[in-house]
Amino acid sequence: MQNNSISEVMAAAAKAQEAADFAQFTVNNLWILVAAALVFIMHLGFATLEAGFVQKKNVVNILFKNSMIIAIGLLTYCLFGFDLMYPGDFNGYFSTGAFLSPGLEPTAEGMTAAYADYTYYADFIFQAMFAATCATIVSGAVAERIKLVPFLIFATLFVMISYPITGAWKWGGGWLDAMGFYDFAGSTIVHSVGGWAALAGIILLGPRNGKYTPKGIRAIQGHSMPLAAIGVFLLFFGWFGFNGGSVLSADPALTSLVFTTTAMAAAAGAIGAFFTSYFMFRNYDLSMVLNGILGGLVGITAGADIMSVTDSIIIGLVAGIIIPISVTMFDKLKLDDPVGATSVHLACGIWGTLAVAIFGDCEDCGSFGAQITGILAIGVFTFVFAFIVFFIIKATMGIRVNDEEQEIGLDIGEHEMSAYG
Amino acid sequence: MQNNSISEVMAAAAKAQEAADFAQFTVNNLWILVAAALVFIMHLGFATLEAGFVQKKNVVNILFKNSMIIAIGLLTYCLFGFDLMYPGDFNGYFSTGAFLSPGLEPTAEGMTAAYADYTYYADFIFQAMFAATCATIVSGAVAERIKLVPFLIFATLFVMISYPITGAWKWGGGWLDAMGFYDFAGSTIVHSVGGWAALAGIILLGPRNGKYTPKGIRAIQGHSMPLAAIGVFLLFFGWFGFNGGSVLSADPALTSLVFTTTAMAAAAGAIGAFFTSYFMFRNYDLSMVLNGILGGLVGITAGADIMSVTDSIIIGLVAGIIIPISVTMFDKLKLDDPVGATSVHLACGIWGTLAVAIFGDCEDCGSFGAQITGILAIGVFTFVFAFIVFFIIKATMGIRVNDEEQEIGLDIGEHEMSAYG
Amino acid sequence: MQNNSISEVMAAAAKAQEAADFAQFTVNNLWILVAAALVFIMHLGFATLEAGFVQKKNVVNILFKNSMIIAIGLLTYCLFGFDLMYPGDFNGYFSTGAFLSPGLEPTAEGMTAAYADYTYYADFIFQAMFAATCATIVSGAVAERIKLVPFLIFATLFVMISYPITGAWKWGGGWLDAMGFYDFAGSTIVHSVGGWAALAGIILLGPRNGKYTPKGIRAIQGHSMPLAAIGVFLLFFGWFGFNGGSVLSADPALTSLVFTTTAMAAAAGAIGAFFTSYFMFRNYDLSMVLNGILGGLVGITAGADIMSVTDSIIIGLVAGIIIPISVTMFDKLKLDDPVGATSVHLACGIWGTLAVAIFGDCEDCGSFGAQITGILAIGVFTFVFAFIVFFIIKATMGIRVNDEEQEIGLDIGEHEMSAYG
Repeated sequence: MQNNSISEVMAAAAKAQEAADFAQFTVNNLWILVAAALVFIMHLGFATLEAGFVQKKNVVNILFKNSMIIAIGLLTYCLFGFDLMYPGDFNGYFSTGAFLSPGLEPTAEGMTAAYADYTYYADFIFQAMFAATCATIVSGAVAERIKLVPFLIFATLFVMISYPITGAWKWGGGWLDAMGFYDFAGSTIVHSVGGWAALAGIILLGPRNGKYTPKGIRAIQGHSMPLAAIGVFLLFFGWFGFNGGSVLSADPALTSLVFTTTAMAAAAGAIGAFFTSYFMFRNYDLSMVLNGILGGLVGITAGADIMSVTDSIIIGLVAGIIIPISVTMFDKLKLDDPVGATSVHLACGIWGTLAVAIFGDCEDCGSFGAQITGILAIGVFTFVFAFIVFFIIKATMGIRVNDEEQEIGLDIGEHEMSAYG
Repeated sequence: MQNNSISEVMAAAAKAQEAADFAQFTVNNLWILVAAALVFIMHLGFATLEAGFVQKKNVVNILFKNSMIIAIGLLTYCLFGFDLMYPGDFNGYFSTGAFLSPGLEPTAEGMTAAYADYTYYADFIFQAMFAATCATIVSGAVAERIKLVPFLIFATLFVMISYPITGAWKWGGGWLDAMGFYDFAGSTIVHSVGGWAALAGIILLGPRNGKYTPKGIRAIQGHSMPLAAIGVFLLFFGWFGFNGGSVLSADPALTSLVFTTTAMAAAAGAIGAFFTSYFMFRNYDLSMVLNGILGGLVGITAGADIMSVTDSIIIGLVAGIIIPISVTMFDKLKLDDPVGATSVHLACGIWGTLAVAIFGDCEDCGSFGAQITGILAIGVFTFVFAFIVFFIIKATMGIRVNDEEQEIGLDIGEHEMSAYG
Repeated sequence: MQNNSISEVMAAAAKAQEAADFAQFTVNNLWILVAAALVFIMHLGFATLEAGFVQKKNVVNILFKNSMIIAIGLLTYCLFGFDLMYPGDFNGYFSTGAFLSPGLEPTAEGMTAAYADYTYYADFIFQAMFAATCATIVSGAVAERIKLVPFLIFATLFVMISYPITGAWKWGGGWLDAMGFYDFAGSTIVHSVGGWAALAGIILLGPRNGKYTPKGIRAIQGHSMPLAAIGVFLLFFGWFGFNGGSVLSADPALTSLVFTTTAMAAAAGAIGAFFTSYFMFRNYDLSMVLNGILGGLVGITAGADIMSVTDSIIIGLVAGIIIPISVTMFDKLKLDDPVGATSVHLACGIWGTLAVAIFGDCEDCGSFGAQITGILAIGVFTFVFAFIVFFIIKATMGIRVNDEEQEIGLDIGEHEMSAYG
């Protein structure tokens, strides 16, 4: 031992430091991957939630759409969107992008630490799982009367172009980021974006036949509450990855806080929806409680990393209160949304983004001005983009199935099969 | 390199040590969080299991209860239970507790390592996911005839007060811990606690109409075996977090052993129930095999960290054998439990706690005397607490729906909707 | 500080190195365990997929089989298979094995690092979760007409003997490994093995009554597309553990690549099946898209760690194209497979193994010769083993339920109950 020179000992210390840094990198990277898998399972949550809330005759169609959306989302994000959203060459508003994102080959560069805490591929797969989410949100809102192929074309363009552009404004380091807009995991960037596109679709599609009659609003009940409940619980489960993974490392303090605020907001959302829907309708409405949980989750998403637990409970509670009010309001406006996606993702997405300004503890960011600017800028861009795309498709291919097909259901009409044998 | 002084090198070594310790802390903390998410998904398991085992007309009701229980459980544990169960100021029997647990604000203290292996928040969210479990166990046993709001009031009081008090006796470092009672992940503290409360509820409620007739016991079949099977598999999945997370670190040796003993006990439980139910009833009863898996899981929970693999197989096998015997026995006593929760969680919970004394390898703990004391003390407290609360609610609000509502089902009776459209 | 001797500093550096190494070991081991849990949930995926694709009258039976298979698989692998597959004493072809695998006791040896990156138990539970998979694959293919107990006997022998023997040829370091056969996570070793056994069973069983009539092939539709879709999404989810865990560490570069190639192949599989089935049948067939996703996953499994992202998309696309072609071909051959397991696991398993030779970047391995040798050797052994076992059971106990039981369904026939109340 005496024979060790100082330089030998220094080398040993440096080697230990390197090993420790690599262990830290490994656990951070592993968490991003596990979080990506959790976000993936949210797509099953959306699929079962939407399947449960539609009529028996449209179940194959909704499952088909959701199966294709995850495939389309992953592929377009790989070929185009990822490079558009996290761009090297970027003026802050629009990236030139690149077809077939460079770096997506297992070269030494792509596989080593492009970032401080995770690899290039871990970043890609985590972000890609997010991308498909916003198209899935649209899927539920336009269910039971939209044509299959036109919807798939819309979903492709939406995930490939619209979502990455507005995403880049904040997460790509664009102009909204520069002005202090704060959206931790995407109340606006993911959820309200899906909600705005859903709204555009609903307006251009019109309501389901028989929903709004001269005699009043007819409740068209979903065909399977167990499927809907499975969907909500799976979404809650996956949200631990959605929000927790958005820490972009396994940082113990932040990930633990985010898990806690996320769960507490969801719990409070259930309670808020329970009491509000009871006072409004005098019954115990399972759909409202389930959507209240989702509303709480959407609401906390913008600020899950900067809220106290008490704040998270208040944010979730308000989101839960919003749900039955918003559902009633959209129905009064004759905007027919079979699954309540606009209430959950748009209304609560806006609320969550504003809540950052009210409760958030974030220096130089999250001011009311910045939050409102972000909500409006992304909302206007997304709504206009979705409206134009849906409008062009409507004018050319048509987007609404005919009355006869709506009557017999899209399962027989589009797929020549039934969901249940 | 020659220029480094010894003190510089020592600082480098200390820095490397610190980095290594932080990496270890990060992975330990991450595992607690992932385990919390896995325990969360057990609530979906309970929801689908119970929904599958009840009749079609009571499905919305059971889903509503289980959605509310997770919300109520998280909130009451946050506001009250956590501080009651893991108390600073504690005489070993009852903590004074504190309304709105201190520390649940993202202060520097709360977010840094309050413990050796995980943060304050990670501890909270993991424990909070456990707390709601015991109320969920009750939910299934009292299904198909309990009033909604009275049940929710019971669940609130039970999770907020009863579970934390008895939990503190062991996991809070109370008198049972001091005397050597051993219950690794809660065969007694979680599962039998749920089972005792279920028993109190069953006794005060009475059986479902038409279950026990002069002509004998009528089997009232569940409405969906796929839902029941989904529930059991999700519970098995989540149990890796329930038991594995109870190591309270990602310690490689212990977590790996716990995963193995947990899975092997579940497998052996299926086999035990398969053969026993075949010899008893001469058929291949899926409900028994599914509950055998759960029985094996409950049975291993008390000692999953101190059993050999062979022991775990024996413990699971015996638990599986217990299931059909216990189900038959409860039916003979006219204690009507639609999902078999008392057999799974109470009977196998007691068995698993005793098994620690038989097989366990734990110095200064887990003696027969200590285990029986723990089972009885927690059992008596919980049963009496639950009985009194249910009794008071019964005397004031009533707990049983009227015969007409039971006939048409609680979905229409309490929620004005059906589970299936 | 001046007082530190060089030897003291060296000890500090060595201690830091040890701590860093242990943190690295902990995160690697944790990932194997989490991956084992993910592979476990694939069994729920198989159960719901198969349940969804069979008729209503055979649902209890399929759930019963799948519940028993996981139990049988874990137990036989523990008692016998693990030691047969990863043998100490091995001539490269057949291990002598050992009843009750040594080391499965929590001794100091068993619990410390037997391997560089994970514990003995973590290795066991991960591998044990794989073992049961291949029997589950058979379960779906022989559904709706096989007797229960004969199937369970077959599954026991198959998991206990056949799977470990061929597995050892590669993963146990046997002769196929020595000759450069490459199969990263089991396109051949797990999936095609299940597929070959399924084929043997299908041949000996014959088709379901009424499937192939003089008037043509009658499509016998599954009873629940939501269950089938849940199954596919859960399998996709679990595959992150199946492939990701097969890295056998949490190595950031490799696990991230494997997550990405796995997901992209699945996505491309959906697209391939979508277009191919549309061109073949002129409709939008949900079953084909779902099986296309699975085909893509099976296809990438052999080389998920050595493919570029572009390669993975091509491999998945081809697998998706194979699905409708293969399903049609098997039907033309009057080989009746209610869930398409032979197309997914056998056809795409072979494709994936060959794809390694086409696209793979693996020095000294994965040549066409080696890949074809592996496919044939394992295929012949497995098919012959399964055929002989099924043949003996057929000759002694019979394997096919009688026509009357097939007509009323196996739920009533074998279990005296229905899946739905």
